[in-house]
Amino acid sequence: MRAVDIIRKKRDGHPLSVAEIDWMIAGIGGDVADYQWSALLMAILLKGMDDAETAALTDAMMRSGEVVDLSGTPGLKVDKHSTGGVGDKTSLILAPIAAAAGVPVPMVSGRGLGHTGGTLDKLESIPGFRVELDLDRYKAVLEECGLVLVGQTAEIAPADKFLYALRDATSTVESIPLISASILSKKLAEGIDGLVLDVKTGDGAFMERVEDARGLARTMCAIGLGLGVRMRALITRMDQPLGNSVGNAVEVAEAIACLRGDGPVDLVELSVELAAEMVFMGGVAPGLDEARERCLATIVDGSALARFRRVVVAQGGDGHVVDDPLKLPRSRGIIEVDTKIAGYVHGLSARSIGAATMLLGAGRARVDSKIDHSVGVILHKKVGDRVEVGEPLCSVLVNDEPGIENALAMIGQAYRIGEGPVAPAPLILERM
Amino acid sequence: MRAVDIIRKKRDGHPLSVAEIDWMIAGIGGDVADYQWSALLMAILLKGMDDAETAALTDAMMRSGEVVDLSGTPGLKVDKHSTGGVGDKTSLILAPIAAAAGVPVPMVSGRGLGHTGGTLDKLESIPGFRVELDLDRYKAVLEECGLVLVGQTAEIAPADKFLYALRDATSTVESIPLISASILSKKLAEGIDGLVLDVKTGDGAFMERVEDARGLARTMCAIGLGLGVRMRALITRMDQPLGNSVGNAVEVAEAIACLRGDGPVDLVELSVELAAEMVFMGGVAPGLDEARERCLATIVDGSALARFRRVVVAQGGDGHVVDDPLKLPRSRGIIEVDTKIAGYVHGLSARSIGAATMLLGAGRARVDSKIDHSVGVILHKKVGDRVEVGEPLCSVLVNDEPGIENALAMIGQAYRIGEGPVAPAPLILERM
Repeated sequence: MRAVDIIRKKRDGHPLSVAEIDWMIAGIGGDVADYQWSALLMAILLKGMDDAETAALTDAMMRSGEVVDLSGTPGLKVDKHSTGGVGDKTSLILAPIAAAAGVPVPMVSGRGLGHTGGTLDKLESIPGFRVELDLDRYKAVLEECGLVLVGQTAEIAPADKFLYALRDATSTVESIPLISASILSKKLAEGIDGLVLDVKTGDGAFMERVEDARGLARTMCAIGLGLGVRMRALITRMDQPLGNSVGNAVEVAEAIACLRGDGPVDLVELSVELAAEMVFMGGVAPGLDEARERCLATIVDGSALARFRRVVVAQGGDGHVVDDPLKLPRSRGIIEVDTKIAGYVHGLSARSIGAATMLLGAGRARVDSKIDHSVGVILHKKVGDRVEVGEPLCSVLVNDEPGIENALAMIGQAYRIGEGPVAPAPLILERM
Repeated sequence: MRAVDIIRKKRDGHPLSVAEIDWMIAGIGGDVADYQWSALLMAILLKGMDDAETAALTDAMMRSGEVVDLSGTPGLKVDKHSTGGVGDKTSLILAPIAAAAGVPVPMVSGRGLGHTGGTLDKLESIPGFRVELDLDRYKAVLEECGLVLVGQTAEIAPADKFLYALRDATSTVESIPLISASILSKKLAEGIDGLVLDVKTGDGAFMERVEDARGLARTMCAIGLGLGVRMRALITRMDQPLGNSVGNAVEVAEAIACLRGDGPVDLVELSVELAAEMVFMGGVAPGLDEARERCLATIVDGSALARFRRVVVAQGGDGHVVDDPLKLPRSRGIIEVDTKIAGYVHGLSARSIGAATMLLGAGRARVDSKIDHSVGVILHKKVGDRVEVGEPLCSVLVNDEPGIENALAMIGQAYRIGEGPVAPAPLILERM
């Protein structure tokens, strides 16, 4: 086989065979040059791939590294994946809930990039917490705690690492087949039996249009099912940030509040719904309603919070943080942003709040940017809320970053205040 | 500027600015990685470039190296470019004719690849002939002989060398903007004032469909004119080989025969027409008819042949070859191919004859293949000719290549013999 022939085939809009896709993945770092792969990526982005090709690509990428065997841990192992949003700390909440409800959760997460945050960055604001575990330790923590919260290891899907970096450098990110294969190859290599997807749509999401979110959800469910994994997808709105806090340490604090039964309504609702889907999928509840009851019970009886404390300690973190979130890193200053007009919050741009938080130092403009865990934004008003002149809209947690002025201006513009009352849009749009 | 943003712009179908194109070319080997250029090449192939973008790309590629100043040589310097065919040795004929008619011809040619031959390979079948000259020697030969026949030097358009190799490895060759920029950047860097294009169409040509040939001719004329060069294009048929010989030494011998006034009609006609266009463009004849007369006179009075002898000697070659073509390399064996049916030649596939000649060793399957100058095919029958049973169709000049059997089978299949008489299609289809 020759890379040049395979590239031509896709360039001309023809489907690639399983053997051709396998050969291209096996050729990474060998027979296939980086510049050949990037030309193929552009051809795939512009000409597409059908489900059979996407499944073959997912499978080849998964097999490019170690495929973890979790059969030693009893029960169906279930994970959740979100396509990324602003203020989205549901992983920190639903993983302990599902584990406490009896479903093992081997969760491999990513880091934030651009205006969206990442679970690993949030976890690392807990002093001592280690997100990089070797495979033995990964299995041991899962058995001990019923959940484990780690980053992608070098052994898992190295072809995805290569292609992800190449796509980032060649504007070939926004392709449903490539996104699906990237996500699923990693998730499937973890050794899971089921996966619940949270596909976000709206201003702050990667997929701004609901049709695109639906297309991604449909493709991923089809590919996952074809490869023998139980799949379920929720399409959810990401127009305003989820919950009231955006940053790293502030998001961990808010997740802990949720596990205590003291979280904001939207965040608790979504976390519990996703956890319930996982619990139902894991086969420990006979229906979704029963699964939801069971999840809520783990908050009421404190077992979910106890699970979170246990996994924090097992992964080297300071467990006292779970009982006293004031022990988390705190910024040196707080600036209140208030409003000069009265009315109702008609809009609150998740993308602007995310971008402003990145400017403060809480996120990454580039893959190698350093993170400040203590900065962020706490929202006092969200869509639908009544505001009076001079009332604070949000508090901005800052250190001495040069970007503060720009960030504050961006946060001010993120709010849209109007005259009449409005109701926030429903959070969960569709299930499939 | 960032390569990733420029790639995204083209990927989404937007035109690139002059500054963006300049930056991408300047970044070769520096700020822009090879894998970024190849992704952009695929996006250009699939999304296109308008004339302004193609002109900017041509200009940036031309300025990536030395732009030769030929103002020291009096007169308008004119070159010809052919998009490549089988048996196409017009360069060897028209360059001495135009020079003898008074138009300086600084000709930079290429090597053969695939089923098409290359002028440089043909010239190198003349013992001692050097196609690689430095710039000083290039100018000196042009002044001394009125023509010079060389390959692309390292100083000329290095960006084209880079992109050409990258396109070859990434299936991004077949793009009119990229082809146009590649050809014109090199030609314009030679220091020419005018360029006559021979854009071939048909079975043996790069552009099989006449619409594609017309599109390429139109784009190249527009770009060249915009960059201040006189342009003229002929669209010509390449269904059967041009002339009666295909190979290297045999094609030089046939070119010499033409310069003696003893060549096949189709080859002489096209060579003289192209030379006449050059002579008219060079301003030494008041009209195309006068230019044609003048070109024919250089054959009759022997001045064109004398020019050829002079340039062969000036470039280190054996001048006796011009008077005695038997001094050219000759194959060890000759195999006659005859026909088992009587009738008329209805078709003679240029592509099959070219591919068979490559199998014999006369061409390159890969850029680094070695050439056997002595092998080739001499056609005794062409389209429209009457053939009787057992009469030879062609003679195949062979050494001991392993590919002979396959080549002979391919040559046999290249001929299509039918019942009624047919007339060959006209050679020159359009002028623009």
